[in-house]
Amino acid sequence: MRVAVLGVGLIGGSVALAARRRGDVHVTGWDRDPAVLAQAADDGVVDLAVTQIAEARDIDVWVVAVPLAALAATIAAACAVADDGAIVTDVGSTKHSLVGACAAGCYIGGHPLAGAETAGVAHARADLFDGATWYLTPTPASPGDLYERLHRFVASLRAIPVAIEAAAHDRLMAAVSHLPHVLANVLVQQAAFALGGDTLPATGPSFRDATRVAGANPPLWAQIYAANAPALAAQLDATIAQLQTVRDGLGDLEAWQQEAADRRRALLEVGLAGGPEQELRVSVPNRPGVVAELALALGHAGINISDMSLAPSTDLRTGVVGLWVASADAERARALITAKDLLVT
Amino acid sequence: MRVAVLGVGLIGGSVALAARRRGDVHVTGWDRDPAVLAQAADDGVVDLAVTQIAEARDIDVWVVAVPLAALAATIAAACAVADDGAIVTDVGSTKHSLVGACAAGCYIGGHPLAGAETAGVAHARADLFDGATWYLTPTPASPGDLYERLHRFVASLRAIPVAIEAAAHDRLMAAVSHLPHVLANVLVQQAAFALGGDTLPATGPSFRDATRVAGANPPLWAQIYAANAPALAAQLDATIAQLQTVRDGLGDLEAWQQEAADRRRALLEVGLAGGPEQELRVSVPNRPGVVAELALALGHAGINISDMSLAPSTDLRTGVVGLWVASADAERARALITAKDLLVT
Repeated sequence: MRVAVLGVGLIGGSVALAARRRGDVHVTGWDRDPAVLAQAADDGVVDLAVTQIAEARDIDVWVVAVPLAALAATIAAACAVADDGAIVTDVGSTKHSLVGACAAGCYIGGHPLAGAETAGVAHARADLFDGATWYLTPTPASPGDLYERLHRFVASLRAIPVAIEAAAHDRLMAAVSHLPHVLANVLVQQAAFALGGDTLPATGPSFRDATRVAGANPPLWAQIYAANAPALAAQLDATIAQLQTVRDGLGDLEAWQQEAADRRRALLEVGLAGGPEQELRVSVPNRPGVVAELALALGHAGINISDMSLAPSTDLRTGVVGLWVASADAERARALITAKDLLVT
Repeated sequence: MRVAVLGVGLIGGSVALAARRRGDVHVTGWDRDPAVLAQAADDGVVDLAVTQIAEARDIDVWVVAVPLAALAATIAAACAVADDGAIVTDVGSTKHSLVGACAAGCYIGGHPLAGAETAGVAHARADLFDGATWYLTPTPASPGDLYERLHRFVASLRAIPVAIEAAAHDRLMAAVSHLPHVLANVLVQQAAFALGGDTLPATGPSFRDATRVAGANPPLWAQIYAANAPALAAQLDATIAQLQTVRDGLGDLEAWQQEAADRRRALLEVGLAGGPEQELRVSVPNRPGVVAELALALGHAGINISDMSLAPSTDLRTGVVGLWVASADAERARALITAKDLLVT
């Protein structure tokens, strides 16, 4: 099989490496940036580098992995030169606006949920998509054989293809990814206004957790907000309406707080990737080494920590560590932690 | 010196234990709940347990540490029986509504920034306040000798007393603590609506970070929202206005995103407690043991990790660890991490 990857950054480069784990796959790479293309060729990420999209020949699967703003044009360019029966897909984080990007009907959208934390072909890895959800957004007009071939290609990268309607995908991403970024930004702005020129006092970990993604990669995120503007606007309208309700009922929010607790548990106890998980909150003395002791005890027992938050008290001597482990491992983890004289709260 | 602690839960119990590190301090404890009072007495948290506030005799410093809803009445009860020259203070998380709680002028408000993560006298510790900011909210009418004595008492608990006007305190807490809790709740509600009955897909760590405090302790947080309603309402109004501006300019947010990045850096690079800190973001393979290796390497070098976030990619095989360390240690930490073939991004 012959694959073309247009845009060989972190995601495109990882698609190339993942596809080439199969011996019978040949990858042609193209990038707008000659330096990136040269690095991909030098590092052996692609089999062949081409400087014009039309130079890619006999391609079965075209994967467009360029920045959001260039996606529609690059998808159209690939469709214009694609052979009959070839499939064109992309990896962009919004999908609805791309549904019409290709008049020829050879395009089906895609979005792997992986890799947002780093960028650049230097970080590309063959196993980036192992086990990751990879959304595919076919339309009623998508030819069945093309969708089937795309599904098999994504599965061959060891990702998990999940079909979703493009508009539903964009609504979901607006709620669970784009809105959190907007609210993180708002929080740092509000804190800055409230403080005037003062420095942030020791407020505990909730502010840091809530603002961890504030100001993430401004050029990239400006593109993401713009690309998903309709769905994000709907989320913002609903958020504003909810905040207005809260603001008008500040004296009586226990039921609302409890509802949030229940919803969070329901959302997060189902698996984020694979089986269900549980959070253990452990009171620990916060000194060099204590996190290592905890992690080692669980690591030696073969229990993976899929997420961790260390919340020091403001004295920086004690704290609470939140650990997410597979539910199947939770009881064992609890016993190991208790045996170390640490308290699970 | 004789201290009375009214309400011997986590904070009150810790005040008692911290005060009694000095040999010349005698602590009288009272609690509305006889079982809690008995446990505090049995565990040696207090020297003497009394079942009526008026039974506490010859008290120099009264510390009111009851739940928010009972604070005003309990402060008034203490003021009613306090000797001339005695000081009455509290540990509540909002202060403006309590300024008038005591007609006699013997009350000065306080708020230690510590201990919100756990509850109950069983978690009380003598060192809970070591190095913690402890806000004090004197008014122009507060007698100077009382304030000076309260300052020395708080310092004797090894906390750092910081004077702040009550209304400014409440505005600050609304921005950096109460608003983040409200927004976390809103996020889980929005995600639940967007998903319908579906389970949360593998969305990466930003959603978990942003919603970590959603639904925290509903009875406690309902009280906190209600107690700080005026300041929180002002924050919500400003938030709604900012969200409306964002919603109307979704196509052109790069400057806004960059501003958030700059403000976050400015807010967080100044110390949360003590010296300035830096965040190092490290790309790691996410397998049992890797967090331990990192933490051990830094621990052996005497570098404390004051906050940590483990952000697995959705494949749960790789991730990015955010580590906060003292700026003075950052270069050494970077070198240690690089020497382990891990990438600081």
